[in-house]
Amino acid sequence: MKIAVDAMGGDYAPEEVVIGAIEAAETYNLDVALVGDEKRIQEVLRKYGAQENTRLTVVHASQVIEMGEHPAQAIRKKRDASIVVATRLVKEGCCDAVVAPGSTGAAVTAALLGLGRIKGIERPCIATPIPSKKGITVLLDSGANSNSKPQHLVEGAIMGFHYAKYILGIEKPTVGLLNIGEEASKGNELSQATYPLLEKLKTISFYGNVEGRDIPQGTVDVVVCDGFVGNVILKFGEGMAMFIIRLVKDTIKQSGFIAKLGALAIYPALKSLKKRLDFTEYGGAPLLGVDGSFIICHGSSKAKAIKNAIRVAGELVQQDVVGHIRKSIEEEEVEQYDSES
Amino acid sequence: MKIAVDAMGGDYAPEEVVIGAIEAAETYNLDVALVGDEKRIQEVLRKYGAQENTRLTVVHASQVIEMGEHPAQAIRKKRDASIVVATRLVKEGCCDAVVAPGSTGAAVTAALLGLGRIKGIERPCIATPIPSKKGITVLLDSGANSNSKPQHLVEGAIMGFHYAKYILGIEKPTVGLLNIGEEASKGNELSQATYPLLEKLKTISFYGNVEGRDIPQGTVDVVVCDGFVGNVILKFGEGMAMFIIRLVKDTIKQSGFIAKLGALAIYPALKSLKKRLDFTEYGGAPLLGVDGSFIICHGSSKAKAIKNAIRVAGELVQQDVVGHIRKSIEEEEVEQYDSES
Repeated sequence: MKIAVDAMGGDYAPEEVVIGAIEAAETYNLDVALVGDEKRIQEVLRKYGAQENTRLTVVHASQVIEMGEHPAQAIRKKRDASIVVATRLVKEGCCDAVVAPGSTGAAVTAALLGLGRIKGIERPCIATPIPSKKGITVLLDSGANSNSKPQHLVEGAIMGFHYAKYILGIEKPTVGLLNIGEEASKGNELSQATYPLLEKLKTISFYGNVEGRDIPQGTVDVVVCDGFVGNVILKFGEGMAMFIIRLVKDTIKQSGFIAKLGALAIYPALKSLKKRLDFTEYGGAPLLGVDGSFIICHGSSKAKAIKNAIRVAGELVQQDVVGHIRKSIEEEEVEQYDSES
Repeated sequence: MKIAVDAMGGDYAPEEVVIGAIEAAETYNLDVALVGDEKRIQEVLRKYGAQENTRLTVVHASQVIEMGEHPAQAIRKKRDASIVVATRLVKEGCCDAVVAPGSTGAAVTAALLGLGRIKGIERPCIATPIPSKKGITVLLDSGANSNSKPQHLVEGAIMGFHYAKYILGIEKPTVGLLNIGEEASKGNELSQATYPLLEKLKTISFYGNVEGRDIPQGTVDVVVCDGFVGNVILKFGEGMAMFIIRLVKDTIKQSGFIAKLGALAIYPALKSLKKRLDFTEYGGAPLLGVDGSFIICHGSSKAKAIKNAIRVAGELVQQDVVGHIRKSIEEEEVEQYDSES
């Protein structure tokens, strides 16, 4: 199995991306195609003594999508951008999955144009694992679509279910609809219209409405919502986690001498906690619904996050998540769309 | 000045509500009308030796809105419910502000029917103070309206500005529009349509778009969003905060002996931190836009939260926040609505 990695994506490219790829190839028995500026990638490979590693190949791409660029325009204009080339490798069957650190907008556009959608899916969406009391809650859509219709949330529920089942290994994942109250009648127009559609699904287990607090509580395995809401929650959660850890440290610092001694002792524990709350550690967020395995990573991803993302990309392929989604959508006879909207 | 308190509202009524009122009356030089079951309220007053306190009066109301009831129906049916009577006391000029613990839906309905709206405001909204790096960020709407239109967010921006200025004491509060990117063109239909309207405002300072992470970071003083999004964020934030504090404690417990010693030393500090993150400590959330001063408290409010809410209710009156909002709306020539929607 071979994973195409956009080696030029994210804030620490290519060095951290290449290190992550080297480690993943060694640890997970995977081949990796590093896509991007050949010269710069080779330099990093040499620096870390991996230039002879046969699991790693370099595929040259002369262009890069910068963070500030308009995603859709840039993807259409730069035909030799690393993310476009990486996606093409999968479309053409040379690779099995894409790992894309950096601009989410560019990654989504590249995937949509390069791989197309699974038949019956109108809006692919991003599934983000969020740390919770019970381990992980999958939140989707966390940023691909900002004006979701009920049908898109139904698609999200089906896709999130299969991600939780085959990647997180939960035998019968529960799916909740994010809302502002438990009763079916609660919420805004979108959630009110979505609830009865989710109730009708045969291939997944719909739990009912969940509220914001149910995400950290792990009430359900999968929480489905509009991409605007999901994105705001995700970023708020990341910010809150870092803010609280900072507060804990400051609180300790401002305490007396004994507390400071205590602090010295628990700092390592706090550090590991910070990692648990660092959403980027979980190996990226799959873009579900495109016709291929595609992982989006945070722009700030370092080697470990890239390594994890490559592992998850491999699992997506091995578990045939795309196939399971396709089958489920067919069984549900979800209304099919022709529009490109 | 006299504050009408729904003594039957919330999970710990009437005892905790009455204790909070006793403390507030003593501390803040305010009169309080305790509205509800006279016999039960008098019992609590006697229990705490406050039966002779002339700052406290009891106004009997024979009915209570239960948490499970449909708010609008219950308010219309139960004309002698404590929350309805408390609101009526303000409408009739006997009291200056309402403090309402318990069901948010019932409180909003009681306020809308009992006090009406400020001229030019179509949708009153709930402003919730959220702890942030810089102190407090005001999030509104945090749950009154689930299907906001651009105009409602504009109203929210104006109201949040005056709340931050006159109650939080920020001389020139900045107002941000919650979105999924910084550029004006980002976001969903609602945020895209709202941005240019906020830019045009003359009486407040619009900062531009902010993202989820800007709420804990305190990038702006006021964050305006749709009530569905705000409510989900608020509950997610409360859940996250409690989850992380729990994690910190567990992390310490699972560490070795020295860490446990350290933990003993820092537990008091953690407790105070938990309080800082307890959104209910801040004295409730004002319902802005109704034609009167009205504070909604969490259903789980204990005496301290009630006491703080009564203080903030007094400040709303003293600072004439309703008057400032009215003036600002007139100056902005915000489109006026006649509909009851």
